Amino acid sequence: MADTRTETDSLGTIDIPADRYWGPQTERARRLFRIGTEHFTPALIRAVGLHKSACAEANERLGELPPDLAGPIRQAAQEIIDGQRDADFPLPIWQTGSGTQTNMNANEVISNRANEMLGQPLGSRKPVHPNDHVNRGQSSNDNFPTMMHIAAAETVEGRLMPALGRLHAALGQRAAEWADIIKVGRTHMMDAVPVTLGQEFGAWARQVELGQERLRATLPRLLMLPQGGTAVGTGLNRHRDFDRVFCEIVAERTGLAFVPNPNKFEGMGAHDALVELQGAMNVIAVSLNKLGNDIRLLGSGPRSGLSELVVPADGLSSSIMPGKTNPTQAEALTMVCAQVMGNTTTVTMAGAQSFLELNVFKPVIIHCVLQSATLLADAAESFAEHMVLKLEPARERIAENLAKSLMLVTALNPRIGYDKAVAIGKLALRENLTLKDAAQKLGHVSPEDFDRWVRPEDMVTPGATLDG
Amino acid sequence: MADTRTETDSLGTIDIPADRYWGPQTERARRLFRIGTEHFTPALIRAVGLHKSACAEANERLGELPPDLAGPIRQAAQEIIDGQRDADFPLPIWQTGSGTQTNMNANEVISNRANEMLGQPLGSRKPVHPNDHVNRGQSSNDNFPTMMHIAAAETVEGRLMPALGRLHAALGQRAAEWADIIKVGRTHMMDAVPVTLGQEFGAWARQVELGQERLRATLPRLLMLPQGGTAVGTGLNRHRDFDRVFCEIVAERTGLAFVPNPNKFEGMGAHDALVELQGAMNVIAVSLNKLGNDIRLLGSGPRSGLSELVVPADGLSSSIMPGKTNPTQAEALTMVCAQVMGNTTTVTMAGAQSFLELNVFKPVIIHCVLQSATLLADAAESFAEHMVLKLEPARERIAENLAKSLMLVTALNPRIGYDKAVAIGKLALRENLTLKDAAQKLGHVSPEDFDRWVRPEDMVTPGATLDG
Amino acid sequence: MADTRTETDSLGTIDIPADRYWGPQTERARRLFRIGTEHFTPALIRAVGLHKSACAEANERLGELPPDLAGPIRQAAQEIIDGQRDADFPLPIWQTGSGTQTNMNANEVISNRANEMLGQPLGSRKPVHPNDHVNRGQSSNDNFPTMMHIAAAETVEGRLMPALGRLHAALGQRAAEWADIIKVGRTHMMDAVPVTLGQEFGAWARQVELGQERLRATLPRLLMLPQGGTAVGTGLNRHRDFDRVFCEIVAERTGLAFVPNPNKFEGMGAHDALVELQGAMNVIAVSLNKLGNDIRLLGSGPRSGLSELVVPADGLSSSIMPGKTNPTQAEALTMVCAQVMGNTTTVTMAGAQSFLELNVFKPVIIHCVLQSATLLADAAESFAEHMVLKLEPARERIAENLAKSLMLVTALNPRIGYDKAVAIGKLALRENLTLKDAAQKLGHVSPEDFDRWVRPEDMVTPGATLDG
Amino acid sequence: MADTRTETDSLGTIDIPADRYWGPQTERARRLFRIGTEHFTPALIRAVGLHKSACAEANERLGELPPDLAGPIRQAAQEIIDGQRDADFPLPIWQTGSGTQTNMNANEVISNRANEMLGQPLGSRKPVHPNDHVNRGQSSNDNFPTMMHIAAAETVEGRLMPALGRLHAALGQRAAEWADIIKVGRTHMMDAVPVTLGQEFGAWARQVELGQERLRATLPRLLMLPQGGTAVGTGLNRHRDFDRVFCEIVAERTGLAFVPNPNKFEGMGAHDALVELQGAMNVIAVSLNKLGNDIRLLGSGPRSGLSELVVPADGLSSSIMPGKTNPTQAEALTMVCAQVMGNTTTVTMAGAQSFLELNVFKPVIIHCVLQSATLLADAAESFAEHMVLKLEPARERIAENLAKSLMLVTALNPRIGYDKAVAIGKLALRENLTLKDAAQKLGHVSPEDFDRWVRPEDMVTPGATLDG
Repeated sequence: MADTRTETDSLGTIDIPADRYWGPQTERARRLFRIGTEHFTPALIRAVGLHKSACAEANERLGELPPDLAGPIRQAAQEIIDGQRDADFPLPIWQTGSGTQTNMNANEVISNRANEMLGQPLGSRKPVHPNDHVNRGQSSNDNFPTMMHIAAAETVEGRLMPALGRLHAALGQRAAEWADIIKVGRTHMMDAVPVTLGQEFGAWARQVELGQERLRATLPRLLMLPQGGTAVGTGLNRHRDFDRVFCEIVAERTGLAFVPNPNKFEGMGAHDALVELQGAMNVIAVSLNKLGNDIRLLGSGPRSGLSELVVPADGLSSSIMPGKTNPTQAEALTMVCAQVMGNTTTVTMAGAQSFLELNVFKPVIIHCVLQSATLLADAAESFAEHMVLKLEPARERIAENLAKSLMLVTALNPRIGYDKAVAIGKLALRENLTLKDAAQKLGHVSPEDFDRWVRPEDMVTPGATLDG
Repeated sequence: MADTRTETDSLGTIDIPADRYWGPQTERARRLFRIGTEHFTPALIRAVGLHKSACAEANERLGELPPDLAGPIRQAAQEIIDGQRDADFPLPIWQTGSGTQTNMNANEVISNRANEMLGQPLGSRKPVHPNDHVNRGQSSNDNFPTMMHIAAAETVEGRLMPALGRLHAALGQRAAEWADIIKVGRTHMMDAVPVTLGQEFGAWARQVELGQERLRATLPRLLMLPQGGTAVGTGLNRHRDFDRVFCEIVAERTGLAFVPNPNKFEGMGAHDALVELQGAMNVIAVSLNKLGNDIRLLGSGPRSGLSELVVPADGLSSSIMPGKTNPTQAEALTMVCAQVMGNTTTVTMAGAQSFLELNVFKPVIIHCVLQSATLLADAAESFAEHMVLKLEPARERIAENLAKSLMLVTALNPRIGYDKAVAIGKLALRENLTLKDAAQKLGHVSPEDFDRWVRPEDMVTPGATLDG
Repeated sequence: MADTRTETDSLGTIDIPADRYWGPQTERARRLFRIGTEHFTPALIRAVGLHKSACAEANERLGELPPDLAGPIRQAAQEIIDGQRDADFPLPIWQTGSGTQTNMNANEVISNRANEMLGQPLGSRKPVHPNDHVNRGQSSNDNFPTMMHIAAAETVEGRLMPALGRLHAALGQRAAEWADIIKVGRTHMMDAVPVTLGQEFGAWARQVELGQERLRATLPRLLMLPQGGTAVGTGLNRHRDFDRVFCEIVAERTGLAFVPNPNKFEGMGAHDALVELQGAMNVIAVSLNKLGNDIRLLGSGPRSGLSELVVPADGLSSSIMPGKTNPTQAEALTMVCAQVMGNTTTVTMAGAQSFLELNVFKPVIIHCVLQSATLLADAAESFAEHMVLKLEPARERIAENLAKSLMLVTALNPRIGYDKAVAIGKLALRENLTLKDAAQKLGHVSPEDFDRWVRPEDMVTPGATLDG
Repeated sequence: MADTRTETDSLGTIDIPADRYWGPQTERARRLFRIGTEHFTPALIRAVGLHKSACAEANERLGELPPDLAGPIRQAAQEIIDGQRDADFPLPIWQTGSGTQTNMNANEVISNRANEMLGQPLGSRKPVHPNDHVNRGQSSNDNFPTMMHIAAAETVEGRLMPALGRLHAALGQRAAEWADIIKVGRTHMMDAVPVTLGQEFGAWARQVELGQERLRATLPRLLMLPQGGTAVGTGLNRHRDFDRVFCEIVAERTGLAFVPNPNKFEGMGAHDALVELQGAMNVIAVSLNKLGNDIRLLGSGPRSGLSELVVPADGLSSSIMPGKTNPTQAEALTMVCAQVMGNTTTVTMAGAQSFLELNVFKPVIIHCVLQSATLLADAAESFAEHMVLKLEPARERIAENLAKSLMLVTALNPRIGYDKAVAIGKLALRENLTLKDAAQKLGHVSPEDFDRWVRPEDMVTPGATLDG
């Protein structure tokens, strides 16, 4: 067994692994919550460090904490920010629903580490006390949701937005490159009138761009931090200006426009802002699910599918069918989308069961939100790099499909009316004729008029079929 | 059996109830889709009429439709707007996924009714042809999603926003009235430090207000109409300016700032804007679920619950327990919330399965969106009127609960430190003492200091416990 | 305004439309719950009548109700069963979460109608009293969930199971008819080794059959009725044998093996049995969503899709694209599936928020369950009749696709090894050769061996490619 | 940089970390799928090893694999089963949707390790070839779903069922211990007629027991394995008896009654069996959510809540409120429930998007299913040990609450009728009288009759209030 030391807090005494900085609250929680393997991600742990550092600085500025304590606290917190204390955060997300144990974990690690820097043994609880100093003017109840907002905002701004940007750029590039490839459009998955391949990529690009707008639209509420509410939202025991100063510090260090939530009760008792953010990511998942499905569909084949796009040979193959190429990136992407949609249900359920002054589903909410943001970001980048930028159009097949499409008859509507156009289309299908032949056979359109009126290149912009 | 007339279109001949204005497409659909009992709501049917009227007007302005046809079309469409043609829309929402049958239903009703006005028998298809004139420059594929956006925007602006406004006002009124009632706060559903009853109502009010902000944040995308995309998004067969003129007309008639979607493909192939709107309503459901739960919890009793609020006696009673009063409005409200959350899954599923140029889950999407908006609106108003404005605080019980709360000890943290405060709280609980007695017994705080430091009225605002 | 009469109950006096049988509780509820347009379906109202009739009979048998009261009660209840009193159930599902108002609605209608039969005016509350007699030995709290179980079981057995049976039969018929049509199989939506069209239909048929098994697996818990729990599960105020006798009567009248729930608390405080049933329907929705998607995919075209199935021309058409045939039934079906999946979230949310002795999301739970069962039944039948039985295989296209498939190379694995088979496949793709030519060119397989080893008809059953 | 070796397969050459057993397919996948941090759990990796071992044994028995190859394959597979090769499975679950890369990962690791045992260098691909031998008669398409079923069944039977058993036992023990504690029941969260504390625990116990029944009800379909379908379900290239022999071996080694799926297409193209299993776990989550909520509610306080149960002091405390005890285990439990409910949406979405011969959401499905099973198991055990078995009833408070309950008046219904009982209850509430005094004051019941008729101990079983 590993060496241990014994620590004591106001609730008792307990043995702790000698080489760890955590204290009794963390150790007890470790034993009480042997549930699952899910831990907080680095993004959240970083936010914990940043938060504690900013609290110490704010308290120092406001005269609530002497510099000789605030300094070591900030130093220890910086080690958390820098990822050096990851192994000192052993708790699963399945703990108390306020995240209290992770907040206390941070208080204990910082207290121990700061005291160590000041020459005191671990567990001495002085001069830096985990509650009185590290947690000064705070409660888990306002700390943890604040950490949640910080981690979520940083992940959205730092990971998800840029990743969507890269996917948008890749799709946009293809839209431009292939703006002139005219092809069969499809509605109800059935052959319809023509579109350009560029228009198809343009639509997906637009969806991604709107996804970014949707994320941005949620930010005003995400950037409002409940810090300063302390235990129940009233702000008991904190300096009157603590929330303002804290937000200024965090805003400066993250470059994100964090402001105090004017109603701390709302920010602690409910997590609507995170349900909202998850909802925006749900829309993005919906968009990307379509993207993955569409690419898969257009790339189906190579010989007996729609076969209009050539899926990149990625060096992976079937274990039984030699040489088979699959749209593997589309599958990873759509699986991610399914996970994000499920996370939306989880976050909804967790948000809906808020009671009175405190929502106690905080850890699972932030876990799902951060997982969703990270997965969407990773999958979007992977799809852009390994799929979008490696696709090729199957120009011959595209042209072939277009040439035989019966739906070109639609261009005749404004010339001869819908009913006659139907007759032409039905005859062509029944007797396997070209539209031109059918039109002539019925006497509705002369071959010359047909050639003038039914031009795929006129069918991909508004109005052209009405001209001349 | 009812009398019938026989109508013929390009796909055949069929018998239709003699007293109805619909035509062959509608009649065939009626026989093919005997599924469920769900029909489009008046809000959608109204949007159908508005849409058709605006199309005729736009085509007339642009020279695409002669006034002698446009006029009767608009007149017939107005009857739909006015609710006079509701019985002529017999189709369930479970039809084709583009809403084509409902669009054709409108085309046929308007054609028949307009021709009737012009002295022609039903089924004559002239002078007003359902496709060539009523549907001119349009396709179900851009019409129906446009109708969806119009109906959704009108319902949000006309019903949901005002209803949330009324709930917000009711909660805000109570927050103001009861701003001075200090009571036990609760976290983890356990007794915590004090809050005011006004703060609790203020938090719920704030949630509702933010719900309105969330709705507003989705509007820019909801107000973009795909009209003009026609069959696949390209705008085939419509006048170049049709989309712009159409939106101007609709904007003027609804007072809502509708604009053309710059990417029609996005607005027809996907319904992300409606998934987004549903997501915003999902957040509102989450908020209102908390509201219902909290009121129910605070009103539990009357004798063996938290019993801090008195639930209004609404004249309804248990069928077995005489005189029992229940929070019936909270239950109606939270049931509505569950429905809205489920609708979010439906809309997500339906949005995610968009394929290529056309999402074919349109009817179920708009059905769920309109149901969600209507139910939230109705339930919010009902809850405001029959619950919020009829609640009373149980002042005696509130005072009693506050007086015996052990968590008042928290005010001592900044004075004597967390660890000594714990000792006082534990002693009081164990020996059933008042906090003051326990504090004195342990020698940590004199009675005079206790009275000065532990004042509930100082505990409901930031900083007060740090003064003096 | 309509004529009214005035009725009085223990909670006060109220005006009621003169031509209606309901009483004060119903009238008050009607005014208090102006929410939405959703009402209980006939299946539920029928169960209400059946329930009340069985209660009267059980009480009579047990000596708790004199025959001269029980008789008229049963007569009045029979009118509800027969659908004659539908207009007397005006309440929306958005009422109290116990369904109390609908139970009281039934008590009042029966009391009034029975008293009327006995020559008393409406509102006299005697000789038949709504609570003391119609509701004798009962509470809404055990009545309503019992009605829920009865309605759900009847709908599952009477509607959903037979409808699935018809869909299963239709799919099975096609599987048999087309057992010999060999075609390209597809994995990852890419061309893969052959299957028969019959095998594809057989897989869908099997899914439907397993859906029926899944429903059956939930019945043991659905058939346990909480009747007899009265107010909180204890059975207060009811005859000791009431639950047993009641279940015997209901079982006899429905032909379903209802039994008393041995733990009434479980059946009233939670609705896990209905969450479970909804879960089974969710799986069926998942199965049918695949069915709809697959048919749509195989039927895509007619010229530029997979085009292996010919979707029936159903007489419906695009409003703009003349002569276009769409898989409209597949779209109705998959929309229904999306709704059922959303209902699963609603029911989950509603079930999860059970509190103590009573779940108060009863109306929304049963509404979603019955809607799901009905929609699945209707859509399954519609799809069987209008789609499955009207599909045709596109034999030429199927043969063409098969002939050019590169994945036939898989049959060579056991002969020459995977790596050489890959080389053949890649060469054929790169140089657009047949597999046979590529195999010969690489010297891996002689043309004779190729013809002997690569036979699609050997590739659709186990082992055949290993023979010889 | 770490040392590498170079390996070559039919699709090219690639550098691989020298100390790892995986091969080119795995290495390529590792670079192509840099998405998220989620990996397959040990339960799945164990199933992979078991599967590969059983395949080798079956092929050997059937003469498809010589013993000198089958032996080393089984030895290498055993190392996977024993957890020694975990570090050789580096791929995230976000890969191709068939799980092909993980199957190939296993093929490569086993091939390399077996060849190493046989004295060949890593990457030699002989004598044991990853496809021709390790994957003989198999495809990822039947392998991976078979592994999914094995892992799921083992986790359900080995972890979840026993854990639920422990929770059931704990609840049952408490139900027995506290069978005689009569207390206020609550419906609509309002005071209702009495129940015993034992009855409340009995209801929760029953829910857990029914959860076990629900799991069992899904097993017939979970135990059917698609092994033998190979690429598309037809069984191409495998021995005719392979599926039967394989299942016999796996059944013997796991003790679970696995049998061949008679319709392999169904088991590969759809994952309805896992959607069904997830649905059963969803019901369990719904049950446990109620359990957590109810305990939290009854334990609320300690002074201003329902306060009928004493939540165990677990040594964890608020970071700001000294000495506060919270129902931390209930919060961990209900968070787990929210996650499981969200996973149900994910699995539903993933199952619903099956296309043709292969569902390609396999990894996310099994990930969610195994996570759900593991979390429910862990949380159920934790809750049993740290919450259920450490709760204490607050007998004084319980008695006090009961004594003052107005709903005891319900016992008078059969004696004096509902309407008079209402009058008594309303008077008592309005004038703050005891029920007995109110009954006497109204002249409805004498004090003697009251004492004889209104006895809480008679109110917790059926019929007792009707006696005498």
